[in-house]
Amino acid sequence: MTTAMNRRIVLASRPHGEPRPENFRLEEVPVPQPGPGQVLLRTRWLSLDPYMRGRMSDAKSYAAPVEIGAPITAETVGEVVASNHPDYAVGEMLTAFAGWQDYFVTDGKGSRKVDPAAAPPSTALGVLGMPGMTAYTGLLNIGRPKFGETVVVAAAAGPVGSLVGQIAKIHGARAVGIAGGPEKCRYLTEELGFDAAVDHRGPDLPGALAAACPKGIDVYFENVGGAVFAAVMPLLNPFARIPVCGLVSAYNATEVPAGPDRLPGLMRAVLTNRLHIQGFIVWDFAEQAETFRKEVAGWIQDGRVRYREDVVEGLENAPEAFMGLLKGRNFGKLVVRVS
Amino acid sequence: MTTAMNRRIVLASRPHGEPRPENFRLEEVPVPQPGPGQVLLRTRWLSLDPYMRGRMSDAKSYAAPVEIGAPITAETVGEVVASNHPDYAVGEMLTAFAGWQDYFVTDGKGSRKVDPAAAPPSTALGVLGMPGMTAYTGLLNIGRPKFGETVVVAAAAGPVGSLVGQIAKIHGARAVGIAGGPEKCRYLTEELGFDAAVDHRGPDLPGALAAACPKGIDVYFENVGGAVFAAVMPLLNPFARIPVCGLVSAYNATEVPAGPDRLPGLMRAVLTNRLHIQGFIVWDFAEQAETFRKEVAGWIQDGRVRYREDVVEGLENAPEAFMGLLKGRNFGKLVVRVS
Repeated sequence: MTTAMNRRIVLASRPHGEPRPENFRLEEVPVPQPGPGQVLLRTRWLSLDPYMRGRMSDAKSYAAPVEIGAPITAETVGEVVASNHPDYAVGEMLTAFAGWQDYFVTDGKGSRKVDPAAAPPSTALGVLGMPGMTAYTGLLNIGRPKFGETVVVAAAAGPVGSLVGQIAKIHGARAVGIAGGPEKCRYLTEELGFDAAVDHRGPDLPGALAAACPKGIDVYFENVGGAVFAAVMPLLNPFARIPVCGLVSAYNATEVPAGPDRLPGLMRAVLTNRLHIQGFIVWDFAEQAETFRKEVAGWIQDGRVRYREDVVEGLENAPEAFMGLLKGRNFGKLVVRVS
Repeated sequence: MTTAMNRRIVLASRPHGEPRPENFRLEEVPVPQPGPGQVLLRTRWLSLDPYMRGRMSDAKSYAAPVEIGAPITAETVGEVVASNHPDYAVGEMLTAFAGWQDYFVTDGKGSRKVDPAAAPPSTALGVLGMPGMTAYTGLLNIGRPKFGETVVVAAAAGPVGSLVGQIAKIHGARAVGIAGGPEKCRYLTEELGFDAAVDHRGPDLPGALAAACPKGIDVYFENVGGAVFAAVMPLLNPFARIPVCGLVSAYNATEVPAGPDRLPGLMRAVLTNRLHIQGFIVWDFAEQAETFRKEVAGWIQDGRVRYREDVVEGLENAPEAFMGLLKGRNFGKLVVRVS
């Protein structure tokens, strides 16, 4: 029996607009004990991702909201510290949806073993995890970039966008990334091999994007919405594909935006340009998980794919890091080293 | 040499909003003479379709606009009255893009022979022509209705919508049609076998549509936009498909509609419901023309597909009939019997 306590961060109240510190509460509760067929995981790495903002609201979505008083949802990498399950030994590392807490009991369903010798365990939450697979499946199943086409992605220094651009390059397309600030833009072109980078904080996003896409846009991987989408729309080529996996710019919106109403204009563009707009979440392509991990791991080994992590130390700093994530303050995949 | 004159209706000026009589001009010019390898067609049937409104504007679209002073674009069925082409004999009937006029010279490129013994020649402009193929290709390639799913289509008494619903039924789906007025609605359920019909002129379109779709909507075949799309949106099921082939309610729009801005809400629905929205025109599926004609002709022979034509007598009445088409005044495929 351990006498340690389990620290966890629960949803104290639902954010109205931007999350604020009072929406989160750090609690200490007894460490749960694994029953028959269960293991106790100690969280080592916690993933922070924009989708969590959606779970904090009770609006209808593809997943149920986090209950008030419950730990915030998150995927984690944890170490088995006690096991009553024949498949999992103490000391092994497992992915799990443990949420924002130190300890978690699971029967291993939905978990996957992580081999720390093959790749740093935190990559199971990033380039080799859900964000990487989001980029891979959305780009290849819906975006389907062809040789010589132009692929645009926003939040391009983040874990999804950076892989979208790099896979686009591997498939022979021109990759254009949109990111916030000159440092991230330099990273895209100088370290990741993007053909062009556009700073969305610059004075003229539509003009800069048009200059970066002289042949128009064939694939726009949508993960932010807002002003970026508005700049993209007039540049879309006939038969352009728009996989939609996120709309982070709107996650904090509290009311229907003022007019004019741009919906009819979008539908007109869909018709006249034969656009293909399709929403997805990574689990829609769950059967491609093995292929994804194998192929991307190979590209990392070959040096064709690079990734970057933004590591925050300590569970107690997760709320502040998450609030910054929604403002684009992270640089690379945001993970919390919990213990 | 014939001494007859060629009557033609040209675009006198571009409409601003709804087309008005002064946008059209009836002219008489000499009948053109066929050169080597050409035939002279005398127009028998002229098709009137909503897409022609788009060609009267000079906004960027998938096709070039009609020039001021040129005959309005249209597909026709014409009879060969003089031939210098070995493949076409006098008396044969050919489809052509002759436009709104009595005579047309062509080399036969893009034309197709019409056998009046197999089906009434006007059907080559309707159920067995472009509108029928629009319904067939859009529904089966993008809508992909599955057994037991709900398919909704507007302008359902028209040539595209009526075939969309009937093909949906053949594929085992539930067909719900939206049309203007009780007579058209009765036609849908009593003659075409739709499961339900909703009158968009009724007092509560959203409520009536919801009542007609108790299990939500899996495929919405979009050809009108506007209030119908607004009523459809909240009823869309996860993974719903929306083929977009027309937006007739917006064709006369002259300014960006007032707010609120519904675009972000649409994109949120795309994301959370994994919607698939895709624009198309029938020529995107040109290689399916033979399959389409064979299959739909078979269904007509079996009595599984019915169609209805709204016949206007005389080329000179084309402008008025076209203006009525944009207001939903026709009942069935609108064709002009030219001579």
